[in-house]
Amino acid sequence: MRILVEITYNGSNFLGFQIQQQGRTVQQQFEKILQRMHKRHVRIHPSSRTDRGVHAVQQYFHFDTELNIATSQWQYAMNSALPNDIYVTKVSVVDEQFHCRYDCLGKRYRYKVYQAAHRNPFQSGLKTYIPDTLDLDKMNEAAKQFIGTHDFTGFCSQKTEVESKVRTLYQSEIVQTEEGFDYIVTGSGFLYNMVRVLVAFLIEVGKGKKHVEDVPKLLESRNRNNVPFTAPAEGLYLEHIYFEDNDLTNDFGNNIKIHRKKSLQND
Amino acid sequence: MRILVEITYNGSNFLGFQIQQQGRTVQQQFEKILQRMHKRHVRIHPSSRTDRGVHAVQQYFHFDTELNIATSQWQYAMNSALPNDIYVTKVSVVDEQFHCRYDCLGKRYRYKVYQAAHRNPFQSGLKTYIPDTLDLDKMNEAAKQFIGTHDFTGFCSQKTEVESKVRTLYQSEIVQTEEGFDYIVTGSGFLYNMVRVLVAFLIEVGKGKKHVEDVPKLLESRNRNNVPFTAPAEGLYLEHIYFEDNDLTNDFGNNIKIHRKKSLQND
Repeated sequence: MRILVEITYNGSNFLGFQIQQQGRTVQQQFEKILQRMHKRHVRIHPSSRTDRGVHAVQQYFHFDTELNIATSQWQYAMNSALPNDIYVTKVSVVDEQFHCRYDCLGKRYRYKVYQAAHRNPFQSGLKTYIPDTLDLDKMNEAAKQFIGTHDFTGFCSQKTEVESKVRTLYQSEIVQTEEGFDYIVTGSGFLYNMVRVLVAFLIEVGKGKKHVEDVPKLLESRNRNNVPFTAPAEGLYLEHIYFEDNDLTNDFGNNIKIHRKKSLQND
Repeated sequence: MRILVEITYNGSNFLGFQIQQQGRTVQQQFEKILQRMHKRHVRIHPSSRTDRGVHAVQQYFHFDTELNIATSQWQYAMNSALPNDIYVTKVSVVDEQFHCRYDCLGKRYRYKVYQAAHRNPFQSGLKTYIPDTLDLDKMNEAAKQFIGTHDFTGFCSQKTEVESKVRTLYQSEIVQTEEGFDYIVTGSGFLYNMVRVLVAFLIEVGKGKKHVEDVPKLLESRNRNNVPFTAPAEGLYLEHIYFEDNDLTNDFGNNIKIHRKKSLQND
């Protein structure tokens, strides 16, 4: 039986999602609990492997089990054993063809920045502090330029190892908040560090050091050296996972191009 | 020269204020920086030694220095070297008779509780989660009973080692918040774990397991066994330190009894 688990976590005190030789990770927390329940190792498969310090408002993983436990009991058992910085929001039984990574049609991220006269220790790990005055309108204009299908080679980590660096963004905008701004970005998929590089670039635009007109050239150049910064992990939230065409078209219209990682032959 | 430093910190990732053999403490962070600047060990003296996980919106310490540095430069030097969960709000030069602990006339604490259908990982370490429905009016009524001068032997850790367990509370109230409540308490001084024991007791009142009328008897009995719980550290904030008579009488009126740890002979 394949079990789908919806979770949320505060990434501040995790080395990331994926299990490491040493240190505290989200995967490790769940596999420890599942191992105890199954008396064998159970591997979990997430929709996204968030990096060290990155948060998730919504994240999913699946695993296969021979145990006959009601979904509400799975949720209760996991939440009882989890630390306070992870919470299981929902558990469901899914078709054995379903795969958290391959069935993910898109993701939404939110990057939170606060601006103030001085650093606030109670925001530490939860929002990024930028003391500078920023031109949010210019940043939003620049952000919109990334919507559509582009080769994002110039806006990801040079360590990214994937065949194609072409991704489609459905949403890319700056929204003013009470104490700063959020950058909200939804796409078919994201390259390594891509959101954090986009945010760092937009902050440069906000400071007047980069310009709205630079975006097409920078996308064209496919050279990460032209976009040298990466914003810190602490402001980054994985906010929504899209599994259904409907969910994406409701948010972005029927004309959008949906990218499938998995062929439909099994449907 | 005696330097007074006003600070704020998020206690989530500290083992408390006071330096330990091992582990991260607030005192250790400052003494490391001061040692580097002075090329010798410099001891700092706080107004309050907060426990593991307890936060400070306002806390003070003093130290003596032979270095001739402007106060703004002290602030800058410390903030540049501190981690993101501590911040120096202000630095000033004080009389060499001034002592952070002995000149402290009172302290205000705030204990934050959130109530919701489920745990929120993003509140973890910052507020205490209580899922139960609580009668906040009853809790406030009970809270008010603690105002005045009482022997708090029944409401502190049994490990408390002080001559007198008599303390004066100027304020003790429950205030409803958007997602729960705060308990605000101001007093001449506090015994070990006292705020957390008071909160735990008030929560029992909120659940209907203890009653407003129990307070005089429990104070009278001076027996901690009658009040068995201690609320977790994560919701507790040291919020204000009172050094001046004026500051206290402005908040609580001219008729209050001010308790001095230090005689006035040097004034």
